[in-house]
Amino acid sequence: MKKKSIPIGRPSVLRHANAHSILKLLRECGSCSRADLVRASNLSAPTITNVVKDLLAEGLVEPLGEGESSGGRPPDMIRFKAERGCLLAVEISAESISLLLTDLNGNELDTSKFSLLKQKTTPEAVCGYIGDELKALLKKQKKTREQLLALVVGVPAITNVEEGSVLSISTLEGWRSVPLRVMLTKIANCLVIVENDMNLAALGEHYCGTAQAEKNFVFINIGTNVGAGIFLGGRIHHGSQWSAGEIAYLRLPSISRRQPTIHEFGELEMVLTSSGILKSWQEETGKAARTGREIDAVGILNLAQAGDPRAEKIVLHRAEIVADIIVDLSLILNPGLILLGGEVGSHPALIDLVRKQLEGDEFAVTKVGSSAPGNRAVLWGAISLALDAIPGVLLPQPAL
Amino acid sequence: MKKKSIPIGRPSVLRHANAHSILKLLRECGSCSRADLVRASNLSAPTITNVVKDLLAEGLVEPLGEGESSGGRPPDMIRFKAERGCLLAVEISAESISLLLTDLNGNELDTSKFSLLKQKTTPEAVCGYIGDELKALLKKQKKTREQLLALVVGVPAITNVEEGSVLSISTLEGWRSVPLRVMLTKIANCLVIVENDMNLAALGEHYCGTAQAEKNFVFINIGTNVGAGIFLGGRIHHGSQWSAGEIAYLRLPSISRRQPTIHEFGELEMVLTSSGILKSWQEETGKAARTGREIDAVGILNLAQAGDPRAEKIVLHRAEIVADIIVDLSLILNPGLILLGGEVGSHPALIDLVRKQLEGDEFAVTKVGSSAPGNRAVLWGAISLALDAIPGVLLPQPAL
Repeated sequence: MKKKSIPIGRPSVLRHANAHSILKLLRECGSCSRADLVRASNLSAPTITNVVKDLLAEGLVEPLGEGESSGGRPPDMIRFKAERGCLLAVEISAESISLLLTDLNGNELDTSKFSLLKQKTTPEAVCGYIGDELKALLKKQKKTREQLLALVVGVPAITNVEEGSVLSISTLEGWRSVPLRVMLTKIANCLVIVENDMNLAALGEHYCGTAQAEKNFVFINIGTNVGAGIFLGGRIHHGSQWSAGEIAYLRLPSISRRQPTIHEFGELEMVLTSSGILKSWQEETGKAARTGREIDAVGILNLAQAGDPRAEKIVLHRAEIVADIIVDLSLILNPGLILLGGEVGSHPALIDLVRKQLEGDEFAVTKVGSSAPGNRAVLWGAISLALDAIPGVLLPQPAL
Repeated sequence: MKKKSIPIGRPSVLRHANAHSILKLLRECGSCSRADLVRASNLSAPTITNVVKDLLAEGLVEPLGEGESSGGRPPDMIRFKAERGCLLAVEISAESISLLLTDLNGNELDTSKFSLLKQKTTPEAVCGYIGDELKALLKKQKKTREQLLALVVGVPAITNVEEGSVLSISTLEGWRSVPLRVMLTKIANCLVIVENDMNLAALGEHYCGTAQAEKNFVFINIGTNVGAGIFLGGRIHHGSQWSAGEIAYLRLPSISRRQPTIHEFGELEMVLTSSGILKSWQEETGKAARTGREIDAVGILNLAQAGDPRAEKIVLHRAEIVADIIVDLSLILNPGLILLGGEVGSHPALIDLVRKQLEGDEFAVTKVGSSAPGNRAVLWGAISLALDAIPGVLLPQPAL
């Protein structure tokens, strides 16, 4: 016999999968009877009874007593105990650390933000700030450290999710090959997941944003930098070395072929980002970089929308490049939707021109949408990962 | 309760999944005992006994009597009956129809080829040729029509696999929105699957070619036309409108932004294909198109390899474009391997120059490989799909 096949049918694996889907149903419905679960899950009554027993033992479910009878014996109602624990989402950017604490149903309990400006930003320092913020949040919400079941952190870098390590963040001090999961596990003492921020943003858009109905879509962020999260067949596509979606170095019609090294900005990134737009504005208006402070990229995009011809010219150049990116992504991946996010990417001045560029193009069949600004997609994507991880944390692991 | 979850744990679904994996193990090992299957599958002995009973009833497995004892009672050996039926792979191209008949273990029984040159090529005519070839093959191999369990056909077009319909083949007459599965089911009276030829080529490379070890890879064909099959996470990525991998219209540094209509050749395709290479050669050597007949694209690639400077210049231009495609695919998808196939794509003169273009590029981390010419990847990809479909055809369907 050559090799082992995947043991799809092992009872312990199966029981875990069943517990997972039942927990999800319970989370969605709040309270219901076992008979409701049988109907909604298509699983057998004995299976439901067994899984609910496990969940009761773990304190994830509580009995509510008898429900309303529809003629026969009134059903025993049960309820998902979302307050049994909490989940933490963390977003690390070049400027700040954002945190979001939710209950086990993903209901927001509290948030906090820690500015990294003028702070030490080594991995150790950043983990220290996260620990302090977490402690304050738990105290304020009257939760114990033991109640925190999962911490999911998003970083602006190529991330090995399996190892929980971060390849490199050029904008922070000493962030090369950082074993971030190990470091944060010491602080939080719970399940820790490390992910690329753009992947989390895509998950967030799927969980509660503009892409909830999509099976295949791409989230493109254009702001301080340029990146993408690629969601295919219902999950994030990571690639063979965890670097899928690193679109900042794409070769396109108006971009030269010269390749930067891996720690440099790509030419495309130098043009599309907020700082690239500001630089073009300074060149266009003849103002020196120093006095350019009075306006920022969003200001220039606003001017373009108001009809300023110099700003319009700058934005048109970006719209052409973004349209090229969208056409290439559409041809390769044929996603159902491409979502533009970030302060540049989601600005109406840019999106309107991008849509104009794509008009009449038989190949850009993909819908182009805009991510709602300020929707905290990275944090909500982190929470959606944490929610999926609950059964793995609380229920006995299947023996393989 | 909001919605139904996937019924992962239903016994009938489970039994079907188990039968599928046991059938695969049996196919791989030829003959073995039930105890061997328990060890290799990680499934329980009663499960194996039940599934083998189903397979015996279907005539897919036969008892071989007692095997060699390793001390205790000698085991009852069973054997997969690959001769119980047969599978047909069909590849439709602009020039010909190729057929490959195998047994239920994917062992080649016979092949045939039907030239479409100077023939009527309407969908009805093509289906007629396939019917005639199939009849001849079955007769020669002494198989009945009932023994044919599956027919998988590859077409050079965007294909809706769910509907079994072909969007458009511009090189054949009247191939617009063709319900090919329905048409072929009337002829073959068995399970029919219709797929894009590049997707099948990728599957073939995964089944028995250069990409057997890869979980994520892209197969790029460059020959009469340009296309790609995208294999991600262990399966073909089709996209939201079945058009993923249509790379012939990519926007790249040396390609203008003008977009052709969907039935035209893309500019990239006009340069990279065999006919594009021939055209450049005619321009380079000053020979008229009419007298260019004496050499073909492969001849020009051979000249480049032998050091002819005019041919080298032509191939270098193509290598630069192919390198651009590879860089963009690597950045977006981060596949473990990019395979170049087709008479232009797999030619050493091109591949060597492509590799040189990618040297020192920190972003083109992807391995670049060459598809073995003449390996009939499309046909073998079709057989691999047919093999996967056997349990679905022969075993009782799970009731959902």
